[in-house]
Amino acid sequence: MRVYADNAATTRTDPEILEKMLPVFTETYGNPSSIHTAGRDAFFVLKEARDRTAKALNALPDEIYFTSGGTEADNWAILGAAKKKAAKGRHIITSAIEHHAVLHTLEKGDFDVTYLPVNEQGFVSCEDLEKAIREDTVLVTVMMANNEIGSIQPIRQLADIAHRRNVLFHTDAVQAVGHIPVDVKELGVDMLSLSGHKFSAPKGVGALYVRKGLLLPNLMQGGAQEKGRRPGTENVPAAYGMSLALEKAVTGLEDKMKKLSALRDKLINGILDTVPYCRRNSPAENCLPGMVNVSVQYLEGESILLMLDMNGICASSGSACTSGSLDPSHVLLALGLDHETAHGSVRLSLCGQNTEEEVDYILEKFPQIIARLRAMSPLWEKVEKKEG
Amino acid sequence: MRVYADNAATTRTDPEILEKMLPVFTETYGNPSSIHTAGRDAFFVLKEARDRTAKALNALPDEIYFTSGGTEADNWAILGAAKKKAAKGRHIITSAIEHHAVLHTLEKGDFDVTYLPVNEQGFVSCEDLEKAIREDTVLVTVMMANNEIGSIQPIRQLADIAHRRNVLFHTDAVQAVGHIPVDVKELGVDMLSLSGHKFSAPKGVGALYVRKGLLLPNLMQGGAQEKGRRPGTENVPAAYGMSLALEKAVTGLEDKMKKLSALRDKLINGILDTVPYCRRNSPAENCLPGMVNVSVQYLEGESILLMLDMNGICASSGSACTSGSLDPSHVLLALGLDHETAHGSVRLSLCGQNTEEEVDYILEKFPQIIARLRAMSPLWEKVEKKEG
Repeated sequence: MRVYADNAATTRTDPEILEKMLPVFTETYGNPSSIHTAGRDAFFVLKEARDRTAKALNALPDEIYFTSGGTEADNWAILGAAKKKAAKGRHIITSAIEHHAVLHTLEKGDFDVTYLPVNEQGFVSCEDLEKAIREDTVLVTVMMANNEIGSIQPIRQLADIAHRRNVLFHTDAVQAVGHIPVDVKELGVDMLSLSGHKFSAPKGVGALYVRKGLLLPNLMQGGAQEKGRRPGTENVPAAYGMSLALEKAVTGLEDKMKKLSALRDKLINGILDTVPYCRRNSPAENCLPGMVNVSVQYLEGESILLMLDMNGICASSGSACTSGSLDPSHVLLALGLDHETAHGSVRLSLCGQNTEEEVDYILEKFPQIIARLRAMSPLWEKVEKKEG
Repeated sequence: MRVYADNAATTRTDPEILEKMLPVFTETYGNPSSIHTAGRDAFFVLKEARDRTAKALNALPDEIYFTSGGTEADNWAILGAAKKKAAKGRHIITSAIEHHAVLHTLEKGDFDVTYLPVNEQGFVSCEDLEKAIREDTVLVTVMMANNEIGSIQPIRQLADIAHRRNVLFHTDAVQAVGHIPVDVKELGVDMLSLSGHKFSAPKGVGALYVRKGLLLPNLMQGGAQEKGRRPGTENVPAAYGMSLALEKAVTGLEDKMKKLSALRDKLINGILDTVPYCRRNSPAENCLPGMVNVSVQYLEGESILLMLDMNGICASSGSACTSGSLDPSHVLLALGLDHETAHGSVRLSLCGQNTEEEVDYILEKFPQIIARLRAMSPLWEKVEKKEG
């Protein structure tokens, strides 16, 4: 059996969506900026994609700017907002568990950054944000749902606090969009980043929602596309595919969330029940419906992953974007885990395509793998001796 | 008959290439950064794409960085080089006929810019570059082939001049790659931008060649993809498709260029022979094989385009990226054309898929359309009266 349980890293493009994208590559292939029939045909496909994307987020079509993905959207939101408000100051507030597209953008810029801590379930507190805002604060950027542990932040309340102090609010909703309800008006955010390949759309396309009236300076310069704010020939087939995938994802979302949450709970509870010395990292409440993250003590996450892979199970130890690094996850450290426990983490991220049989299969293999690895571990030997 | 003669704006994705991309969306869909089988499979697809792209340009695989397109590559090259050399100065030399992805990046940055003029055929001179280089010059960026008129610049000589003065050299080769030989080693450039959708690959993917040893600062911050220099989950299917399209484009390129140049010459000579008061804007020598640009005096380019479109012919008046603007083309003005003549320009850009029958069809319709439009033009009436 092969089980793909790394959907937070990327998803399989939905074959039904891909099928619908095909004519956009070979029939309505014009440049949307061209004034001839081929251009206008492409323009209308792009318009349809924008309208559909906006509708799914309760945004206006004019508030949707297509980008190459979540990273570009995050970079743009942060650098754009900072540039716009440069006269006011250069203090930016974020959380300690953001994606590197946010953290590294803040680190590389000439900013004064406050990192909001999270509790051991991975949630920031409104009080901490309230206290962190200063006269020279220009932006608050807090992710909607975490990519490693799945904690969903109280974005509406956080945005309210920022706005009461006249500070712009951005959320990296890359892991949230398509998985939990995202209504930009209800959230009250000024900017929101999303990425297609996290919800069964193709890679290489995302979007930045920018609230109407907020004239965000460009990240890149060039042609007059996207109302002059995001240059470069629009990736029409991908934007079209993303809009279809998003529409599909949000249709009957509550039911899907219930089903997926049940699978997730079965998986994490099954692991916690059968594997001793295993810490739950993904929160029990306010967690993404497909996200499971545990730390298996006295083991390295990487060896667990390799064994899972040998058994046909694709999982990860954290963000794919930081794999290859030997440092433990900054997200898990922020929860208060020590380095060793953080190193023993495994993330299993499910999506609507995962089945109960697959979860049963993981639950069969996972404890066996852990037992086998621990049997070879000198650290574990000491634990067993101590316990007698 | 429908003739797509706007291939410089964008091309139809080659159905054969698209077919080969399909399994990358739905089978090898993993995240190349993931360490499991699905990730490694995707990693190898990406590696294959990089190797193939590098080979087609005579580059090393390590010198190819995939981007979201030509605009991102241009922005990155310019801002990266300027940042790297900031201690030396902020003087950058470019040409007056660059794409807006270059010009606007230079205008928006805090740079001192020298614009090299072009002669009436659209070529910069080596002497002008020689004279323009100063002690504080950090970069020369001159496009390889122009997107409106097709003039091919002497990149090798220009790069040599820059290097003799210890200045970095970038070329925007978006219109060149896949259409004329591009050998980065022979050209001797430090950086070279390309875009897939200009040579029958899909939209939303491009690349920046960065000479080995040149550690270019990032444009965006985030994950560790592309050796930490271009963050964001790699667009594997698009990069794969682009590499296949490029390999196909450069196979037998000399023969294809001969054939296409013959079609181009038939088209432009046919127009110049049958339409009086028509200026050739695309050069007779050192021109892209598919590029035809003429100015039809006493008429507006836009009305010609609309009439061509009504007859099934897709053409443009210049760059698609600037359509919607009422300003005349900066490229045509740089050739020395007056505003009126520049406004009367029509670009017909052919590719290998265009046939002789299509060219014959354009040659049949074009003079009829011009005659009809001129019959309605008060300006033309005066010309006819004057001539008697």
